[in-house]
Amino acid sequence: MYMTQGLRRAAKLKPNDIAMLGDGLSINWAEFQDRTAHLAGAFAKLGLKQGDRVAMLGLNSHRYVEFFYGSFWAGVAAVPLNIRWAVAEHIYALNDCGARALIVDDAFAGIAADITAGVPSIEVLIHATDGAPADNMHSHDDLIANHAAVPDALLSGDDLAGVFYTGGTTGFPKGVMLPHRGLWTSSIGFADAARLTPDDINLHAAPMFHIAGCAAAFNQVILGGTQTFIPGFEPKVFLKAVETYRPTNTLLVPTMIGMLLQEPALETADTSSLGQMFYGASPMTQAILKEAMEKLPGTKFVHLYGQTELSPLVTALGPEYHVLEGPNAEKIQSVGRPVVTVEVEIVDENDKEVPRGTVGEVRARGANTMLGYWNKPEQTAATLKDGWVHTGDGGYMDEDGFIYIVDRVKDMIITGGENVFSAEVENAVMQFPGLSECAVIGVPDEKWGEAVHAIVVPREGQTPDPDALIAHCRNLIAAFKCPRTVEVRAEALPKSGAGKIQKFELRAPHWEGHEKGVS
Amino acid sequence: MYMTQGLRRAAKLKPNDIAMLGDGLSINWAEFQDRTAHLAGAFAKLGLKQGDRVAMLGLNSHRYVEFFYGSFWAGVAAVPLNIRWAVAEHIYALNDCGARALIVDDAFAGIAADITAGVPSIEVLIHATDGAPADNMHSHDDLIANHAAVPDALLSGDDLAGVFYTGGTTGFPKGVMLPHRGLWTSSIGFADAARLTPDDINLHAAPMFHIAGCAAAFNQVILGGTQTFIPGFEPKVFLKAVETYRPTNTLLVPTMIGMLLQEPALETADTSSLGQMFYGASPMTQAILKEAMEKLPGTKFVHLYGQTELSPLVTALGPEYHVLEGPNAEKIQSVGRPVVTVEVEIVDENDKEVPRGTVGEVRARGANTMLGYWNKPEQTAATLKDGWVHTGDGGYMDEDGFIYIVDRVKDMIITGGENVFSAEVENAVMQFPGLSECAVIGVPDEKWGEAVHAIVVPREGQTPDPDALIAHCRNLIAAFKCPRTVEVRAEALPKSGAGKIQKFELRAPHWEGHEKGVS
Repeated sequence: MYMTQGLRRAAKLKPNDIAMLGDGLSINWAEFQDRTAHLAGAFAKLGLKQGDRVAMLGLNSHRYVEFFYGSFWAGVAAVPLNIRWAVAEHIYALNDCGARALIVDDAFAGIAADITAGVPSIEVLIHATDGAPADNMHSHDDLIANHAAVPDALLSGDDLAGVFYTGGTTGFPKGVMLPHRGLWTSSIGFADAARLTPDDINLHAAPMFHIAGCAAAFNQVILGGTQTFIPGFEPKVFLKAVETYRPTNTLLVPTMIGMLLQEPALETADTSSLGQMFYGASPMTQAILKEAMEKLPGTKFVHLYGQTELSPLVTALGPEYHVLEGPNAEKIQSVGRPVVTVEVEIVDENDKEVPRGTVGEVRARGANTMLGYWNKPEQTAATLKDGWVHTGDGGYMDEDGFIYIVDRVKDMIITGGENVFSAEVENAVMQFPGLSECAVIGVPDEKWGEAVHAIVVPREGQTPDPDALIAHCRNLIAAFKCPRTVEVRAEALPKSGAGKIQKFELRAPHWEGHEKGVS
Repeated sequence: MYMTQGLRRAAKLKPNDIAMLGDGLSINWAEFQDRTAHLAGAFAKLGLKQGDRVAMLGLNSHRYVEFFYGSFWAGVAAVPLNIRWAVAEHIYALNDCGARALIVDDAFAGIAADITAGVPSIEVLIHATDGAPADNMHSHDDLIANHAAVPDALLSGDDLAGVFYTGGTTGFPKGVMLPHRGLWTSSIGFADAARLTPDDINLHAAPMFHIAGCAAAFNQVILGGTQTFIPGFEPKVFLKAVETYRPTNTLLVPTMIGMLLQEPALETADTSSLGQMFYGASPMTQAILKEAMEKLPGTKFVHLYGQTELSPLVTALGPEYHVLEGPNAEKIQSVGRPVVTVEVEIVDENDKEVPRGTVGEVRARGANTMLGYWNKPEQTAATLKDGWVHTGDGGYMDEDGFIYIVDRVKDMIITGGENVFSAEVENAVMQFPGLSECAVIGVPDEKWGEAVHAIVVPREGQTPDPDALIAHCRNLIAAFKCPRTVEVRAEALPKSGAGKIQKFELRAPHWEGHEKGVS
């Protein structure tokens, strides 16, 4: 079970078919394999050794796929970086995993020096660009052109394929170590759940650094399908790409689907190629589904639920449950059923399975489980127990095996499809002078599903300025994680007997009359 | 990647849906899991330990599936025995792997004592029967009823799942050790290639001891589909089962398809449920396809190629290539393209890939590779090199990645879908008194594709009796392996410079005007 298998297979079966299609770009499978083997050759010449970590910070492009497959071929671990992170977060993650190389694209070349200044382990800087590389950087394309191919390292099974950073409850991102078996298994489970075929054409619109974006790339390679790209999601750009490349499927987060449905150009755009749309991060409401069915009449929807620690796919809710009427209609608030690659249980705090309909923690296992968190044995032991990944999500399973997520045990906010761990934001907030305590919660938001809201209690005699507090956070963490609103309270926050802040009490007044968007 | 995963998943998702359907029988997923866990409990009480080998000798039934899953659950290795073997071959295989338990059904209970008399390691005898067990045997159903469930041993990945015996070039069957990852991966590859869904109903008509029959059972469990059974293939019984159970698919060998097409009852039988028919062991001719399309108008065909050492699936040729006209029609003589789980290369004797269209040895790798041959390190090393299984089949790959098998490097005869290794037959023949040398080859046969033909050279002054020679072989090897015809020659057999018998010279006159059926 090695990630290069699909590439090698497709290059043999259909060398002249198109693997990647972009703006003025068409790379067939023979070329894709060739570029991969040459990029791996360049990695070796630049001194990178098997097991080293190579990071990428960039928007969607064919070079992102080449970064992954070049890494797999070379036997180095790929580390995709969150494009919304602040420089300090990039520095944290790169130091955490001791990355030796960093690839940036044009959008991020400007901050590369700021990042590498804080990361002594980085020896190699690569610029993934159509033009000339920036100073002190190698050109991605020149590296491929000027270096000989090397043999495939053929890492497989439990061998480390990549380190994927996810928000951390302790206030710092955690590097999830995913093995070849994990990424491969999740991809084949995705392919089965979505009934993908080699004739499928995927459009990468959601960010490719995200494990869901990676998964879309990987299953296209395993099946031998085609992938196309837009740098990032913007409704008009998305629609133009759909008309140009005629993709058969795409993966979006619900916020993007919402933006798309509100785009006037959707009415006249030809989206007839788009047979399937995959989405995750939160369920679709009947209202949104109704609108989507009207505005995208030829498109079927598949809801995918997972998490990085599971490479990521856990459950899927297929098109047959995206209906407005009939017995299946009630399942739309679920995240579907476990895909064929995964076994799921709902357990109590003693890891005993609970009866159907009872809320407990969702745990999952299969060949898609992570190896652990990079350099965090204690957190690994807390999450990966007896082979099960404990998701931290509260949910229940109905009699038919559908899973409903009702709460995030790990206290996470989902805003615009991005996971924000409260603890990480609280950590940043509390570095602001003059605070005695704080709690960060998600509050309902029309556009983003949830918005990050901070409640702070000043020290005696202090009067913190909300705007200054938000600006302070922006220096420390990604903009999307920063509080959008700040509430200053005089009295202490409500606490349990054990002294734990009772967040449900803080959330209650905000969520009255709303359904909390979860999954 | 553990074989019990699919069972555990289906038992959660659809406890009340039918898993296995038979004559007066309906077992749902909750019951199937329950029976599995109880059978494993019985194995433990009977003293079987993790890693022990448990064999089964029986016709197709739900108890055959329970034998596999009970073994997986208990952590013992399942050893399915070839129902066509002679007692001596059962004794050889059971001693070879040191089996500690043997399950027999009604068809084989009568020879159980003969077998166990030759296998001192067997301590437990189980009778899989609807009635009362034979003397000195435990009843399969009573064991399940009277023993408590035990926890799943949860073997996975490289852990041994079963030992599957295959003909041996050295004259003895070899025990192919297949790990959990192998059987699981091959099944998911099968499911993808055949576009199986949880709504599929499989009819087991080909023998379930065979790895292809096992695979059909395993992928139904992984997907959560239904399986139904007839004890063995007989055209009328098959058609009645199709009308009764309404299976959506079945796996046959070409000889069975030929028998089915000649069955008059086919004209009036309702085979409309049968959306897909899988077959292997040799390609379909245009003539047979034409007849099949006329007589089974609603059925699509999928050709599967594999071998035990690859768990077993390697390539598949889908319905789109089972056509009489158009550009795809020419592919029907191929075995199709590698499935998504496998990488295939055609290599020369130095393991270098050869150009397209050039004949070489077919080799394959993926998570479906065997661990090796039981207790045969040298043969393992010769077959499993650098992670590739060398199939022993000669073939070429066309420009589109389709593979054509043109010869069996390992000198095998395929008769009625069964592999017969010449060396094994020659070994038996040469034990007949008065022979100086012999060669066993496949010759064309209307019904069986190939028939086993022996050419013998007597010692001076001897005149061996062909009938006595055939009778002698029947005491040593399975009837299907025994020569059907014997030719006595006075002169020595043609040999190469190195002294190897030139079988192609012996075959040539028999095959003039015939196409040799291969794959």
